[in-house]
Amino acid sequence: MSGKQKMRNRTYRLQTETRSQFINIDRFVEQAIGESAVRDGICLVFVPHTTAAVTINENADPDVLRDLCRACDRLIPSDLEFRHREGNSDAHFKAGLFGSSVTIPVENGRPVLGTWQSIYFCEFDGPRQRTLTIRVIKG
Amino acid sequence: MSGKQKMRNRTYRLQTETRSQFINIDRFVEQAIGESAVRDGICLVFVPHTTAAVTINENADPDVLRDLCRACDRLIPSDLEFRHREGNSDAHFKAGLFGSSVTIPVENGRPVLGTWQSIYFCEFDGPRQRTLTIRVIKG
Amino acid sequence: MSGKQKMRNRTYRLQTETRSQFINIDRFVEQAIGESAVRDGICLVFVPHTTAAVTINENADPDVLRDLCRACDRLIPSDLEFRHREGNSDAHFKAGLFGSSVTIPVENGRPVLGTWQSIYFCEFDGPRQRTLTIRVIKG
Repeated sequence: MSGKQKMRNRTYRLQTETRSQFINIDRFVEQAIGESAVRDGICLVFVPHTTAAVTINENADPDVLRDLCRACDRLIPSDLEFRHREGNSDAHFKAGLFGSSVTIPVENGRPVLGTWQSIYFCEFDGPRQRTLTIRVIKG
Repeated sequence: MSGKQKMRNRTYRLQTETRSQFINIDRFVEQAIGESAVRDGICLVFVPHTTAAVTINENADPDVLRDLCRACDRLIPSDLEFRHREGNSDAHFKAGLFGSSVTIPVENGRPVLGTWQSIYFCEFDGPRQRTLTIRVIKG
Repeated sequence: MSGKQKMRNRTYRLQTETRSQFINIDRFVEQAIGESAVRDGICLVFVPHTTAAVTINENADPDVLRDLCRACDRLIPSDLEFRHREGNSDAHFKAGLFGSSVTIPVENGRPVLGTWQSIYFCEFDGPRQRTLTIRVIKG
């Protein structure tokens, strides 16, 4: 791989399976950092969709992720008086609240995450074929 | 433009027109990236206000943005028992939930956004004169 | 300090005092930028916890922060029907909504914040001993 290629965005594909779902993407982030050959810097994980997001949360108890999904649905019910004809305005709103990117420090070629942290792709209007863009910046 | 100027922050002004409003700022982001002469890297869009935010969401159906505004107001009504005397604590809370910045990958001198994504300045306590800071980082 | 050390992450410790609390961390950010010797670039403030977050909000009236805490508790009550046995799923959800990082422009060796903006560590499941990672990127 040339030096120029090393600095480019990496794109990953994933298939979601239900309407609302949090999918662990740590392996994509570790792979992108490894291939970038950046030892120290930051890593941007970006979701190019408007009804999906990316977030960092607990990796130990899967009940936490189920609770997050349910709390989202309780907080933003899909039957709010939305006008958007596709009927998925709740998904657009959830995506806005969680956000389209996370940025993580990189040290010694590894993401610097807390003990209980993992990175999750947040599906709010699945099942769909989705993509993910990861860029690692040296510095 | 000198090399030094190329690396500095760019500031843009915008006038909002109602209390709650999402304003498309794609043109500012494209202009800032163009002027930075950075071909590959990341772009930080930062809002230096505490009752406004920035987010990424759908650009196709304007109903989505109206739904986001209304869902915000349903979720965080302005008559919650707030103590702050200015009476705009709901706006501070909305700004916190959406966040003060977005970071976008840059490739070939262009922001790497999804097909349906645009970048929006979020006004929660307008109408006001606002500013926006954009910085492009090579890497 | 060697050039290599200048580019590394800085870690700060803080002790929170109540279950929900917003703590001003401007001094850590200013110190990290000063020690990095970066004049122009961006600063990433990252929280390596899953029941805490970081946000930017008003520094003038402390009632704003109290209102944010109360609005959080009103919006996401701790007695939602959560399954996670630790009983702190509300804290995980709040952490997800506010986010695990903020990114700030740096100019002339200073964070570029708005007049009323300060950076806050958000505790949602305290009191605890917490840490904070700050990385400054030149560019």
